[in-house]
Order: sequence, then structure tokens, then C-alpha cells
Amino acid sequence: MRDTGLLSPVRATTPVEALTSDEAWLRAMCAAEAGLARAQARVGTVPAAAAQVITEVAADGSLDIAAIAARSRGAANPVVAVVEELTARVAAVDPVAAEYVHRGSTSQDVLDTACCLVITQAVVHIRQDLAKVCAALEDLADEHRQTVMAGRTLTQHAVPTTFGLKAAGWLHLTRTVDVRARHLTQRGLPVQIGGAAGTMAAYLEHARMHFGRLPADYAASLITAYADETGLAEPVVPWHVLRTPIVDTAGWCALLTGALGKIAVDVQSLCRTEIGELSEQTAAGKGVSSAMPQKQNPSLATLIRSAALQVPGLASSLAHCMLAEDERPGGTWHAEWQPLRECLRLAGGAAHTAVELVTGLRVHAERMRANLEITRGAIVAERLSAQLTPHLGKTAAMRAVAMAAGRGEDLAEALAQETDVLDAATLKSLCDPTDYLGAADELVQRVLHAGSTG
Amino acid sequence: MRDTGLLSPVRATTPVEALTSDEAWLRAMCAAEAGLARAQARVGTVPAAAAQVITEVAADGSLDIAAIAARSRGAANPVVAVVEELTARVAAVDPVAAEYVHRGSTSQDVLDTACCLVITQAVVHIRQDLAKVCAALEDLADEHRQTVMAGRTLTQHAVPTTFGLKAAGWLHLTRTVDVRARHLTQRGLPVQIGGAAGTMAAYLEHARMHFGRLPADYAASLITAYADETGLAEPVVPWHVLRTPIVDTAGWCALLTGALGKIAVDVQSLCRTEIGELSEQTAAGKGVSSAMPQKQNPSLATLIRSAALQVPGLASSLAHCMLAEDERPGGTWHAEWQPLRECLRLAGGAAHTAVELVTGLRVHAERMRANLEITRGAIVAERLSAQLTPHLGKTAAMRAVAMAAGRGEDLAEALAQETDVLDAATLKSLCDPTDYLGAADELVQRVLHAGSTG
Amino acid sequence: MRDTGLLSPVRATTPVEALTSDEAWLRAMCAAEAGLARAQARVGTVPAAAAQVITEVAADGSLDIAAIAARSRGAANPVVAVVEELTARVAAVDPVAAEYVHRGSTSQDVLDTACCLVITQAVVHIRQDLAKVCAALEDLADEHRQTVMAGRTLTQHAVPTTFGLKAAGWLHLTRTVDVRARHLTQRGLPVQIGGAAGTMAAYLEHARMHFGRLPADYAASLITAYADETGLAEPVVPWHVLRTPIVDTAGWCALLTGALGKIAVDVQSLCRTEIGELSEQTAAGKGVSSAMPQKQNPSLATLIRSAALQVPGLASSLAHCMLAEDERPGGTWHAEWQPLRECLRLAGGAAHTAVELVTGLRVHAERMRANLEITRGAIVAERLSAQLTPHLGKTAAMRAVAMAAGRGEDLAEALAQETDVLDAATLKSLCDPTDYLGAADELVQRVLHAGSTG
Amino acid sequence: MRDTGLLSPVRATTPVEALTSDEAWLRAMCAAEAGLARAQARVGTVPAAAAQVITEVAADGSLDIAAIAARSRGAANPVVAVVEELTARVAAVDPVAAEYVHRGSTSQDVLDTACCLVITQAVVHIRQDLAKVCAALEDLADEHRQTVMAGRTLTQHAVPTTFGLKAAGWLHLTRTVDVRARHLTQRGLPVQIGGAAGTMAAYLEHARMHFGRLPADYAASLITAYADETGLAEPVVPWHVLRTPIVDTAGWCALLTGALGKIAVDVQSLCRTEIGELSEQTAAGKGVSSAMPQKQNPSLATLIRSAALQVPGLASSLAHCMLAEDERPGGTWHAEWQPLRECLRLAGGAAHTAVELVTGLRVHAERMRANLEITRGAIVAERLSAQLTPHLGKTAAMRAVAMAAGRGEDLAEALAQETDVLDAATLKSLCDPTDYLGAADELVQRVLHAGSTG
Repeated sequence: MRDTGLLSPVRATTPVEALTSDEAWLRAMCAAEAGLARAQARVGTVPAAAAQVITEVAADGSLDIAAIAARSRGAANPVVAVVEELTARVAAVDPVAAEYVHRGSTSQDVLDTACCLVITQAVVHIRQDLAKVCAALEDLADEHRQTVMAGRTLTQHAVPTTFGLKAAGWLHLTRTVDVRARHLTQRGLPVQIGGAAGTMAAYLEHARMHFGRLPADYAASLITAYADETGLAEPVVPWHVLRTPIVDTAGWCALLTGALGKIAVDVQSLCRTEIGELSEQTAAGKGVSSAMPQKQNPSLATLIRSAALQVPGLASSLAHCMLAEDERPGGTWHAEWQPLRECLRLAGGAAHTAVELVTGLRVHAERMRANLEITRGAIVAERLSAQLTPHLGKTAAMRAVAMAAGRGEDLAEALAQETDVLDAATLKSLCDPTDYLGAADELVQRVLHAGSTG
Repeated sequence: MRDTGLLSPVRATTPVEALTSDEAWLRAMCAAEAGLARAQARVGTVPAAAAQVITEVAADGSLDIAAIAARSRGAANPVVAVVEELTARVAAVDPVAAEYVHRGSTSQDVLDTACCLVITQAVVHIRQDLAKVCAALEDLADEHRQTVMAGRTLTQHAVPTTFGLKAAGWLHLTRTVDVRARHLTQRGLPVQIGGAAGTMAAYLEHARMHFGRLPADYAASLITAYADETGLAEPVVPWHVLRTPIVDTAGWCALLTGALGKIAVDVQSLCRTEIGELSEQTAAGKGVSSAMPQKQNPSLATLIRSAALQVPGLASSLAHCMLAEDERPGGTWHAEWQPLRECLRLAGGAAHTAVELVTGLRVHAERMRANLEITRGAIVAERLSAQLTPHLGKTAAMRAVAMAAGRGEDLAEALAQETDVLDAATLKSLCDPTDYLGAADELVQRVLHAGSTG
Repeated sequence: MRDTGLLSPVRATTPVEALTSDEAWLRAMCAAEAGLARAQARVGTVPAAAAQVITEVAADGSLDIAAIAARSRGAANPVVAVVEELTARVAAVDPVAAEYVHRGSTSQDVLDTACCLVITQAVVHIRQDLAKVCAALEDLADEHRQTVMAGRTLTQHAVPTTFGLKAAGWLHLTRTVDVRARHLTQRGLPVQIGGAAGTMAAYLEHARMHFGRLPADYAASLITAYADETGLAEPVVPWHVLRTPIVDTAGWCALLTGALGKIAVDVQSLCRTEIGELSEQTAAGKGVSSAMPQKQNPSLATLIRSAALQVPGLASSLAHCMLAEDERPGGTWHAEWQPLRECLRLAGGAAHTAVELVTGLRVHAERMRANLEITRGAIVAERLSAQLTPHLGKTAAMRAVAMAAGRGEDLAEALAQETDVLDAATLKSLCDPTDYLGAADELVQRVLHAGSTG
Repeated sequence: MRDTGLLSPVRATTPVEALTSDEAWLRAMCAAEAGLARAQARVGTVPAAAAQVITEVAADGSLDIAAIAARSRGAANPVVAVVEELTARVAAVDPVAAEYVHRGSTSQDVLDTACCLVITQAVVHIRQDLAKVCAALEDLADEHRQTVMAGRTLTQHAVPTTFGLKAAGWLHLTRTVDVRARHLTQRGLPVQIGGAAGTMAAYLEHARMHFGRLPADYAASLITAYADETGLAEPVVPWHVLRTPIVDTAGWCALLTGALGKIAVDVQSLCRTEIGELSEQTAAGKGVSSAMPQKQNPSLATLIRSAALQVPGLASSLAHCMLAEDERPGGTWHAEWQPLRECLRLAGGAAHTAVELVTGLRVHAERMRANLEITRGAIVAERLSAQLTPHLGKTAAMRAVAMAAGRGEDLAEALAQETDVLDAATLKSLCDPTDYLGAADELVQRVLHAGSTG
């Protein structure tokens, strides 16, 4: 029944895989229960000693996860079984403390809080990988500010560009992902604490029984204490059926795999045998083929692209789950867990793989330079067209250049036969692709100077 | 790192979960390798003894799945590591046989063939569950041919119907899913045997070396032998980048969860506290709430709906993977495995759960009858409107009925005040909801008699 | 060939439909061309008079949209045809000015800038509708702070809540959507100005020719001027293949329709004939059925839900389009336009419809109160369970309540027979659903006081 | 408000665009109403003269589509307004006939039937285009059976293949799409005739009133007559909430655009400036760039790929709509129309464009041959590895070839230095890429002979 990552190599054995495993979710559910007991201890409705025992037992980590998974079918969620097991174990240590497990709570309070703990840990780790990706891309962008290469549009050579500008684009995109992660975690994923139907009624009932009357601001105090004990944020209101945190996370994962996927498809294009401008770092067991000994496949880019192809569909499922009727829907909540975890795993795997990819990327500047010559000057046809426009008018200029380029000869020479408004030396000089880079260098600087603000 | 189903209760511990586990995929990859050796033995290019040893070692099942998953990152797929491990184990038994492991093959031949083995086993099992669902629905449809209930459209009572007709609709839909499964498996999922780039070149090269020349029809013979040894179908041509079998499977899973999901949302509607026309079978630990002792949740319907919300997004990812460039793409193939497995798991879990749901469904005919009276006759307003039309014309008839219904009184009485073209007794009789069932019974018969053809 | 909204009633005739029509896009493309000419005039490379003529002709709006659409197939985008038409019309007025149309530019600069203009106008309008929705929801939340109703989970009565709290949840969700819209537009959608392959080379070439040398900071000045002329934001770097603005917009649309869709499914649940706690405002031609004169369908909620079901799939397509290889991909850019427009249309239609829905919503408090009694006290079983826990322990307390509730009699009376730890009067008093509202009122206040920050 | 295809060039001005326009849908709704009247005339419940008048007025086509679209918001569907308009127009001709418009019917009967008419017409047309695509691919596959080219996997040269085999794969995939279309239309899209809630009650009520009693088999006769009058199939049972025909159509559209999208991405790869093995037919206005006069973009492949990126998301929305609660859901039905139409439009546009693409495709065999030499023999490394295996064992053979290939020199010469088990002449001969084509030719024959069965 195990899922080891055999079918998902992009995340197999990566740290985020472990941070989002069933074990990690179970730990987070136990942490949510423990945090709830401590929060109630802080506001005075659970004895401190009971909260302490619950916390210790919850941290023990020896619950039988397969048995709990099996029993999750009964209630359509795993929390009922977790609570039963946890209660039994606490009771074995301290029967009084067992009365305080899950007090006033509901399955969704625990599972949503656990979910936000898992997300937070995954995002924190992923940001470390994104920082490494950004650092490597900064170096690449800076180092290759003068590395001229063909700019390609719709598969065809268009005009020259630099590899530095390409890397700067990747950097800008990756930084944007990181900025969004910062927003997500700075704003904070919220604890969930609403009780059976979002009114917190049972939490308050226990408080009323305990104190004889309900203390002022008890609900607010409890929310604050719970957020504090778990390290999560305070929600304005229970969000059992207001699923912004979930769709935000999924949307961010899609942005991440889309951004890194853009890098991956660029690497794939430029690794093609005929192009050969980039290659992935070679290492034992990397990029190997089971059949062809000569091949060095861009396997890291392949893994990243495989993640980027999976996340949008998962994110769309989660968007559908916003349509959560009543105070808790039968199904839309339950459909979130696995796709959300899969989004995080794939994002984490893609980020981990991207560190390997960009830190090991080999840039073949000489090949970039050589490929620029393939079209014999046609790659600067736009420039020639601009230069001829004052002499011939825009339409005639474009036509002259198109006809010259169509001959497949050296463009400067071909143009010299089409028109005499520019002399051969000028034409020759204008056809130098390294001299038609526009603002490439300035744009790289803009990106480098922009930093991680936003 | 394990995935026990904790986050996917709909399939936790169900048979299809086991049939699609990493262990099952690994077994299938080994079976594909063994089948390939035997196929080559049949066409004379591998010694029978070697094929025998490979088959035995492959069946052993003790490969270290976690280690293989970890190594899958190097080649971006698990087959390279599987082949290395399998070869080493075969070599330990018979070094000569080891030379014949994966002979002439490529990772995708093995993984695609394994994939079709896994799909086939899952579909065969799921069809058993669908047969049980259909049998139970046949009984429900037949038994409740006269069980009158409100037909509801856009959440409002519309006209009467029968629960038998509703169940017949569910039956028709489920049968359609089963018919499609039959098509899928009768046509047969195909073996994959193309070699490095779909030309079968290495398979043929080994044959040429072995026989000194290439036997006539060697490729066709090998395809036939491989299909025969694995129990799969013969493809017309290698389908490394022609992904019909994958998208067909995913599409079928979406049809299945959509069909069972339709049943689930109907059950949910009719289980509502205020409606109470259906309930799920009660059993220890079923439908329980962690907070509310009185509740009996429709948790089976909840599980099924949770599956139905997840599959369409997964299937859309797989449709995107059809855009597989070249002879093997870097990413689109690799993005298929996990979503496809998840489709099968969810379909299998939904079908398993649907058996529980429909065989245990409790139909509260008296409540259906009582709810019919809520609108005090307005549920047959359409009929009254038809009856008044010859007297008043269509527009005036509809207006008269709408005004009468708008009073919220007994419709027959209210109408008697609006118009005198029909007498009170006639109006009373026309307002009997059990007398306005149209062709409900005949339509149930059509479905029951249609059987599983199509 | 027209699409009038016949198949998409949620947006038919709404303002955003007009703001995103083909005519609106064509206007925006013309505005982008005009803005580009004026921006170049500001930095000195286009004569002011020429920019003036281009602006006037571009504003004329009489281009033959069907002819342009037909010609869009040739270049796979409509801009080439727009530029040709616009150039011809400018030439008819001033042949010299015609030389300056689209100077240095590329199709994607124009279409992406136009796209951001269309998005901005749509979002500005939609925010006006969201403000109306929020205002109406504030009123509902405040007015119904004491309107008690059943809280429902997994279709079953769970514990009491208030309609005020439900409306406050809707409000919080809608405000979140509005806050995100503010972020989207405050940060600003960016102009696109990269030229053929993102280096701005032709823009700079024209400047170099014009001035004899390239002025310092010309690229930055031109970006600033273009942003200023169009009212859009300055990008750090051309974003031809860095598609954050597009996926951000689509993600926001999905958040919007998901949020309003949540309201819609709640309204649908509560409008059910058996529940009857809400109804939509009746009006001539609203909620009518072609067959059943008595029906008042919740057709506004239906329209909103229909939008919410469509946007996630569209957004997933746009997320896939982030994988844009090279400096301009062949297909991923071209796949964005129609889904993005559809996202905006559906979001705009949903917001427009939501204003109608929430401002006209009829709340039937007496029906809410009556439905609370259906379970004869079982809706406060959680409370009784809490009250009995100090006497019986948690497990025994839950069991006693479950057994009592299972009898289907009045819960207080049934419990009196199960246990004598609480007297009949206390039990009776505890069973009052209006006395078990938890922090419902406090939570409404939290939402109302939170305001539109965030 | 119009949608001319400006944002969707892949289908702008194509025949399927017209066949799926709002006008076409309106015509189909009118045809459904007319067919219903004639069907009822055939079974004797509507006067033949009335059916005749209704048919004539319905065929007139002058309904004000924009006004109807605007009014569609009231009932959340356009049929109510269509019926009102149609009734008024019939009444103007023959007041008696007007009483028979939409008799016994419901909006969904008309719209679903119209939908199936539109689908059928679109599919019939698309199959004509698929036939042209297949014919052209048959020619390409046959003509290029000996055109050797590099097989590429994960972007790298793998082993040789032929362009004929690649074209045969495209052909097989396209034929599969066509076979599925045949299944779809042979089985037939069904008429919808269920009345208000799927019981056909009002149809039968009118018959009972007309004949004084209900004729035997009236429902079945009416279904048959309606299917016959519209040319559609007979359903077993009304399918208001059994949405197989819709998801089948969407799934087929996704298969089609996925199949043609596979062709498109292959064309894009092979059109790359550095590869140059294919190009699209040049023609005035085709593949032009607004900025770069020299470019010949593969714009047809671009258009097709743009369609393939859009359909999976739309199809996933439609799969979600299977979860249609009750006898008619509030929203899931309403969410189908626009995505389904968009699927058809994109499929139709892609098929139309594919005809242009494959009939005009230019194959540069000499460039294919030249590219084969780039790796200096490494493209047949697999073969050398196989040849050395009997001498060195599998592992050592692969290592020797990998080391030789790694030198970047001529493989035969490099290998001669690594090993002496094969002489230089043999190595030279083995390194001829045109001699290592495996079963490429045989596989092409299999595809060509398979024909359009299946």
C-alpha cells in the first residue's frame, strides 16, 4: 500500500516528501491536539498538567498509521480514529488528562490546523531551495551579460539576445514565487478553531461549566492562545467553509511549478542535440538511458517539467472545492487533502530539483555564438529593415530585407544586391549579431537591482 | 514517506489500493521484464532456460522498493534501477541468463507494459464492484417502481416521480460505465515494445546476430509473443508517443467517478435532515462525528463525492500529456504515472464504496410520500395547467395556476376560486400526486430490459 | 459567428461582457499602439504630430473586426492585421505618421499591453460590484446576528448557528476577493515592451538612428513613458515568457467565482422546498420555469454556480501556459487569450449576479426557527454531552446522549430516562437551541470590525 | 458583445465556428421545437397543420438573438425566451398552432436536443477534415518509408528512424480519433424528452386528454418519433441528469486536439532553425511576423497547439458537471453549454488547420540525413553496444561504447581504439545510420494496412 515515490521521481527522497508524508500529517494532527490542550490550559479551562501529558503522548509518534488510515473510512476522515487512539494512550498514562483530549473540538479543527502546519513547514523548506535557485541565477545572469545567443520565437531565430537576459528572466520569475511564499507565510496560515459548526459553542460551553460563567472575550483569547501555541496565525473567523488558505497554497504551488517549468522547457530546448547551448551537469547515474550508452539526457529538466504538468489539474480540483455548502460539506473538504499534499510534494520536488539544475548548468557560449551564424545574418533582419526604412519607407524596407533573407546567402551581401542606399561595409557592420543586443544588459541590471522586493 | 491512504479514506484499505500500490507497479515491471524474456525465448532469441531463470527471479518480489525509488531520480524513471537490480539478482543465480535481462529494450517498453498490466488488473476488479452496484440498483429500481416521491429541479419540487425511476437512472449510468470498461479491456490495453525510439531496432539487431540474418516477420512475431506472454493486446505500432491507452483509462475513471458521484449527490440531497428520504446503513463506526453523538452522516456518499471531485483535474493533466514531442518527450511521459495511478485508486475506492452505499441504502417511502404534500398540490401544477389549457388557452392557464399556487393554500381549493371550468371534485382528483407519474414505470422497465448491452 | 451570451446567461448583457468583447480587445490594441506612439513621442523618437494622428485614428474604432479576425489566422495572432489596417488608415490621413505606427514593436507587445488594459478595466468594474455585495452582506450579517438557524454539516443538523454568522462568513470571503483585486491593480498590470525577442532592440535602433547615438537610459525612459501613457505599471523586465500577470488574473477570477459560488450553494441549500429558509427576490421573468407555473427557482444562485464550475478548468489551462519555451513560444501564448477573457467574463457575470442575489435575498427567520425544532433537541446533543461529561466521563456521556437522541423523542425527556445526574428542568433549559450559539455574535463582530484590510 | 474569433484564430472563420455559433444553437433550438411538434403530430396529439406551421416559423431564423440572450438571465437558460418568441410568431400566423408550441415540454428537453444536433453537425464536418488529414498522412507515411532521420528522446538523438514511421504514428493516432467519432455518431447522440422532471408526465397528460385515455406505448412511440424527426438517437431513458453524451463529446474533443497537438509539437520541434527538417507551406500572409521580415513561423502548428492547450481544462469542467443532483441541478447543467461549444470550436478549428498543415508540409529529407551525422556515429551506439555484448558482456560493452562516444570523435574510429574485437571495416559499416532502422518499414506497413477499422 506504500507510496515511496517510485512513480514520482521528481520528489522521491526529497525533504518535502518527508515533510508531507502520512507520518508528517499524523504528527501534525497530534501537534494540533496538543496545541489545543495547551491553549485551553492557557485560558484556564484545561489543567496544565493534563495539557502537559497530552503534549508528551502526542509527541510520541507511535500511533499505528495504517490502522488509523483503515478506520478513517468510517467517519470519512482520519481524526476520529486519531482522537480515539490518542485518548486511549493518554488514559493509559493519566485517565484524568484523557478527558481533556479534543475537548470542545471537531475533526475539521484538528485536520485544518494540521494542514496549515504541514503547509508552513513545506513552504519554509521550499523557500530555502528557492533562495539557492535565485542565488545561482543571479550568478548566471551576471556572468553571462555579454554571452550572445539567438533569441527564438515560434521556434525560429528572431533577433540576438544574451544568455544573461534569459537567466535574468528566470530569476525574476523565481523571485516572484518567493515573494508570494513570503506573503503566504507572513500573513500566516491560520489555525482552525470553530467547533462543530463554526460557532465555537462547545469550547465555550466547557468554559462556562468550568468558570460558572463565560469569561469576557473567551473566544478571542482561545483563538489567540491556539495560534500562539501552534505558531500559526489567528483567523478572523472560522474558515471551515471559507477555503482561501487552501486555494492560496495550491495557487502558489502552481505558480512555483509553472515558473520552474519555464526554466525547464528552456533548458530542454537549448539542450537539443542540434542546438547544444546548454547541458545539465553530468554525474554518475544522472541522465542515463537504459538502452543508449552515449546519451546525456536533461533529466533534471524532465523531472521539473513532469511536476509542472501535474499541478494545474490538482489546483483546479481544489478551486472546485471552494463550493462548500452549509457549515461543512460532504465531500469538498474531503477532496482537498490528497491533491493539496500532492501539490506540495510536487512543488517541493521541483524546487529541490531546480537547485540541482541551475547550480550545475553548463553554458556553452561558443555554441551559442556559432548558432547565431546559422542564418547568415538574417537574425538581424529586423535591424536592417529599420536602417533601410528612412531610405525606402517601412513597407519597402521590410520587403527588401525579406527578399534578401529569402536567398539564404549572407544577408549583407544579398542586401547589397537589392539596394544601394547603404554601402557594403555599413551593411556588413550592421549585420554583426553581437552589436544588436538592444537593452539586454540594462534589463539584466534592472532585474539584479530589483532584488527580492515586491 | 509512506502513503497509507490516511489522506484518501475513499480508497484506504480497498483492494484497488493494493492493486495499484508501488509494490504492485514494481511487480508489474518485473512481470514485463519476465514476459519480454519469455517472448524472446518463444521467437528463439533468448534461451528458454534464461527466460525461466529471469521469470523466477522477477517473481521473487524482494527488490528494495525504497532504494529503487531513490535511484529513479537519476534516469527520471524507475526502470533503469529495476533493470540493474534484477540483472544483479539474475546474475547471482545464473550469470548467462543475466545477459538476457531487458535485451533490446528501453525503459518505456517496460513501464508502459507494466502500466497496462496494472490498469487491467484494476479494471477487472472494479468491474466486479460495478456488477454488484448494478445488481443492487436493479433491485432498488424494480422494488420502488411505485414509490412516489417529489421530482426536484433547481432545488424546488417540480412534479412527482418515483424512486424506482431515480434508481433506474443511476443503474443506466453505472451500466454505461461498465460497458465502457468492457470495451477498454476487450479491445485490450496493449503491450509496449518499440525499443529506444520506436523502431524495435535493438530487438531486431539481437535477432540478426543470433540467427545470422533477420527471420521474416520477426517484429510481428515478437509483438505477438509479448502480448501473449503478458495477456495484453498487440498494438498496431509502438505507442511511446501515441498515448490513447492512457487518456482512455483516465477518461473512463472520470466517467466512473462522475456516474457514482451523481448517485452520491442525490443521496446527500435526500439524506438532508429536513428531507430524510434516504439514509445510509448504520453500522458501528460508520458516519460518526467526533463531536456530535446524535449524527448519522452520509459518509459513504461523502467519500464517493470526494473521489469525483478529484478525478477530472487528474484526467485533464493526462490529456495535456498527449502533446508528447519527438520519439519520447522529456516530461509528458513522466507526468503520467502518478495521476494515472491516482485516477485508478480513486475509481477503485469509489466503486468499492458504492457497493457499500447502494446495498445498504435505506429508503424511507413514507417520508417521500409525506414530503410530496408539502406544497399542498402545487407539485402537480403542471398537470392542472395542462388540464386548464383547452379551456383557457396556454398562457391564461399557466397564469391561473401560478396565482393559485402562489396563495400557499391547497391547490385544488385555491384553483376552485380562480376558475370554474373544472369542478372541485375533478380538481381534487387531478391534484393527487400519485396519479401524475407519467411514464415513470415504463421508463424503469426500459432500463431494466436494456440490460448491459451497448 | 457571433457569441451573444446566449449560452452563458450569467454574463449575458452584463457590463463586463462589453468590457471584454472582441470590440473591447480591438479598442485596447489600438490604444496600445497609440500609447506606444505617444510614449515614443515623449522620449523624442516619434514626432508629436505623428503620435497625435495615430492616436486619433486609433480611437476611431471603425476597423472591420470580422475581417481582422479572419486574417488573424495567417500570423496566428490578430496584431499583424490590426497594424496593417491601422497603418493604412493613418496613411490616408498623414502618410508620414504612418511610418511611425508600431515602430520598433512586435505583436506581443501590443496584445499583452491590450490584455492588461482589458483586465484592468474589468477588474475596476468588478470591484464596484464586489463593494455592493460587501455592503449588502454587512447589513445581512448585522441584521441577523440573533437570527438562529440550524448549522448543518455533511447534510445533517449539527449545532445551532445564526444566519448573521453565515452572512459574515460570506462577507469575509468576498472581502478577501476584493483585497486581492486591490493588490492586483495597485501593484498594477504591466505594459509589455520588449520588441521582437525581449531585448527592446528595434526600439533602441530607431532611437540610435534618430539621435545619432543612444541616449542614456533610453530603454528605462521608454518603459516609463509607455506605462504612463497607458496607465499601466512598469515591468522590471519584458514578460513575454514570464506570465505571472496572466496566471494572477486567472487565479483571482477563480477565487472570486469560488467565493461567490460558496454563497450560491448555500443559497441553493437553504432555498430547497423542504428547507425554505431563504428565497431569491421574486420579479417578473425571474426564476421562471417553462413548464411549471408554480416554481420560483433560485436562478441567480444557479447562474453564479454555473460560473464557478467553469473558471477552475480555464485557470488550469492558463497555468499550463506558463511553460513558455524560448523568447516566445508557439502556442502557449496563443492559448491564453480566449480562456483569460472567459475567466473575466464569468467573474464579471458572477459579481454582477451576486449583487442582485444578495441585495434581494429574502430571509425567512421563522422557518429557520421552525426547522431547528425538527430534531426535537438533538441539535444540542453536543451541549448535553458536554454537560454530562463531568458526571459520566466523556465516552459514557456521548453514549448516553447518542442513545437518547436515537429514540427520536424529545431529547430532554429521553435523556431524563437515560440518566438522573441532571434534573428535568435543567435538561429542558439546556435543550433550548437559541441558548447554544457559542461565540456566533462575537465572531460576527470580528468580521464586521475587520473591515476591508488585509 | 460579439465574439468573432479575434482571440481564437485557430477557429476564426472555420466552418465549425459557424456550425456552433449562437445562431446555430438558436436554429437548433427552433429545430428541436419543430421536431417535437412533428413528432407529436405523428403520434396523433398535435394537428399536422399546426406542426407544419410551427416548423415553417421555426425555420424562419429571424429571432432576435441578442434580445433572447438578454432575457436568458431570467430563467437561467435561453429556452424560455425562445419559446415565448416562437409562440408569438406562430400565433401571428396561426393562433391555434401556437397552443402546440413546446407542448408538454421543458427547457432542458429543447436545449439538450439542440445541443445534440449541434454536436452531430460539428462532428460530421470534423470527420471530413479528419479524412483529409488521414489521406495526407497516408501519402506522407508511404512516401517517406525510406526517409531516414534521427529518432529523438528526451531532446537527444537516440537511434535512427524514418519520417515515414513518424507520419504513420500520426496517422494511427488520427485514425483512432476518427474511429471514436464514428462510434459517437453511429451510436448516435440522443434526443432529450423527459418533461419537467424526466417522467414525461405532461406529454402523457396531453395525450390522455386528447385521446380520452393513454394509448399503449405512447411514451415509447413519442421517443421514437422525436428521434426520427430530428435524426438523433433514441435514449433508453431521459438523461437530464445522466450526462454521458456531454462528457463523451468533450472527451472526444480532447482526444482530437491531443492527437493533432502531438503532430503540432513534432512539427514545431522539426521546424526549429537549427533542425530544419520540416517546414510549413509558405503562402502570402502565412507565418508572418509583425517585426521580422525574414521569419517563416510554423503558425499552423502554433494554432493547433493553442487549441490542444485549451480543451483539457474545458473537458474537466464538463466532467465535474456530471455531479448533477436531483432531477435537474441548479448550475451543473447551465455550466455545460459554453465549455462544450468551446470544445467543439477548438476541435473543429484544429482539424481544419491540420488539413492545411499536413497537406502543405514540406519535408527536407536532405536535412534529416545531414542531422543524422551530427553525433558522428553515436546515434547508433546502441547497435554497437549490442554487437560488442557477445564479446565483452553487456555491461562492459555499454561502457566501452559510452567512453568512445564521449570522445566526440567518429564513433567507429574511437571504438577501434577502445577495443579490437571488431575490425575497423566492420565498425565503419555498423555505424551507418541508414542501416539501423529496425522494423520501421514493417511498422509503417502495419499502420497502412490496418486502415480505419477499430
